[in-house]
Amino acid sequence: MDAIPVRPARIQDVAAAAGVSVSTVSNVLNRPERVNARTAERVRDAVAALDYVPHPGAAGLRTGHTSSIGLVLPDVTNSFYARIARGAADAAYDHGYALVLCHSGDAPEREQGYFTMLVEQRAVGAVVVPLSADPTRLTRLRERGIPLVLADRAMPAQDGCSVSVDDIAGGRIAVQHLLGCGARDIVVVNGERSIRQCTDRYQGARQAVRTRREARLGQVVAEEMTVAYGMEIARGLDDLPDGVFCTNDFLAAGLCRGLAERGVKVPEDVQVVGYGDLDIASFVGTTLTTVRQPVEDLGRAAVEMLLDEVEARAEHAHEARVFAPGLVLRDSTLSLAAG
Amino acid sequence: MDAIPVRPARIQDVAAAAGVSVSTVSNVLNRPERVNARTAERVRDAVAALDYVPHPGAAGLRTGHTSSIGLVLPDVTNSFYARIARGAADAAYDHGYALVLCHSGDAPEREQGYFTMLVEQRAVGAVVVPLSADPTRLTRLRERGIPLVLADRAMPAQDGCSVSVDDIAGGRIAVQHLLGCGARDIVVVNGERSIRQCTDRYQGARQAVRTRREARLGQVVAEEMTVAYGMEIARGLDDLPDGVFCTNDFLAAGLCRGLAERGVKVPEDVQVVGYGDLDIASFVGTTLTTVRQPVEDLGRAAVEMLLDEVEARAEHAHEARVFAPGLVLRDSTLSLAAG
Repeated sequence: MDAIPVRPARIQDVAAAAGVSVSTVSNVLNRPERVNARTAERVRDAVAALDYVPHPGAAGLRTGHTSSIGLVLPDVTNSFYARIARGAADAAYDHGYALVLCHSGDAPEREQGYFTMLVEQRAVGAVVVPLSADPTRLTRLRERGIPLVLADRAMPAQDGCSVSVDDIAGGRIAVQHLLGCGARDIVVVNGERSIRQCTDRYQGARQAVRTRREARLGQVVAEEMTVAYGMEIARGLDDLPDGVFCTNDFLAAGLCRGLAERGVKVPEDVQVVGYGDLDIASFVGTTLTTVRQPVEDLGRAAVEMLLDEVEARAEHAHEARVFAPGLVLRDSTLSLAAG
Repeated sequence: MDAIPVRPARIQDVAAAAGVSVSTVSNVLNRPERVNARTAERVRDAVAALDYVPHPGAAGLRTGHTSSIGLVLPDVTNSFYARIARGAADAAYDHGYALVLCHSGDAPEREQGYFTMLVEQRAVGAVVVPLSADPTRLTRLRERGIPLVLADRAMPAQDGCSVSVDDIAGGRIAVQHLLGCGARDIVVVNGERSIRQCTDRYQGARQAVRTRREARLGQVVAEEMTVAYGMEIARGLDDLPDGVFCTNDFLAAGLCRGLAERGVKVPEDVQVVGYGDLDIASFVGTTLTTVRQPVEDLGRAAVEMLLDEVEARAEHAHEARVFAPGLVLRDSTLSLAAG
């Protein structure tokens, strides 16, 4: 029989040896078509040199068991959270961990019930999209020996890692784009002030407008961020702006539909930018230019930061990683004309 | 100290004592607003009489550990599978089990890797939406002591339980509705013949048309079941039918958009019924009348049938449970006029 190695190579070891990120190693192993041939060869050489075994099955057989990570989410049928789940599941698989899906269903008792379950199950840690900003429950979980990474919410770095998207940057690039396409009289159709993402996106919009002396910025607040409210706002706009930034795609889809009913053309009369790149963004009458958030990356990074803490407690440094959003160009702005 | 009970009451015991389904007990405990007051009282009485502890946390503390169930899916960001996951997560939580999310990503090796992980983790069983109809891998998993329930696919009852939706009935009610709204010249816009759901939905459509001597049924097959192909088909229709049944909502949304471009009015000129009740069904220019599938119920039932097998092996009888779809009335048919 062969000698059992002291510590089997981990995916991080392969990444370090090949000089690439863990995601790239994972892509070479699972989605090779996404990686260029040269990089892939370097990764495969590192895999061979370190005798790295990528399948969690094989890794588990070595250690005799599979450890669990919890993923606590409000609602897995919300596409934003589903994308976090996909990224987290991919990362957990690559590292040989089981991902326990905890669907809190917007109920705090149930979120708490899942925390108890994770403690009992001796989960090595959890990625949590928390229901409320109240950190007490989360602190208690950490005190019971379960490391946490917060997703879609920043956290003071001394308390643990977090991953989130930079919503100020998202608002800024949305309105910069409208300005670049020639819009000067811009309205932000926003959600309630109490939603952190909404105030951040508006703040970004203001930063963008400040760079243009002749540009004006207004704001209309929708009671709910739905298609129906977007339509209602379109019907109620007295002086039509030449650009509208809606802080989610539902509002934007409703706005486009409401404008169409009034005979207002998008993008000729009013240019519109949404936020989120939800499925509907490419299905509505005028496909939406919108802000895309790297949500799968966020889910993946959360799991990887968690495992870094779990597997390398001594060296681990907490980090609040913030992801940059990007713009997807479609028909609701004059992007091509503006060059 | 109190004596430890021989076997703590399970949710099934409460359901039996109250004379209701397990789902109803779960609703009383988690979503009481959904249950009428009288039923809720009966359930609460049974909970008290049996000293039933609903939280998985508490149940786990009694037994000292939490067992796992695997949920193997092709893609959790597909809303159909996300809804299965929600139903399965709810049921697992109610019964005190951890649900391990296995995102096979359309890769057979990865599906296999997850099966190995579930064996190692000593999962008590798995709900599987299999990637291929090839039963070999699934049989092997069962031989390794992991009971399975297939979801979204029927299975011979001697091999295990399965849950699926009756697509023939779905096609039938879609076209019955078009006939009831006065349509007589009906076209089915369908996906490829190799997709079981597509041939079933068409078969249901034919059954419905056979009940009306004066009605005619045609079929157009789309290469892909997407918005783009729906639009293309709308542009290519020479003789306009008065009713169209699209076998998914993407095709229906595209068809409506393509018809609008030609100046054809939905529902006045052509009535349209979709299938799936995806989010887009309520977002498109003309909101879609469509077939709704009870997908959460399917996920929930799969977990409950699995646990019935796990917890009561001797008495368990395999079952192929088939769920009935229903119709959601919206603006793309003359439903109200037809009464």
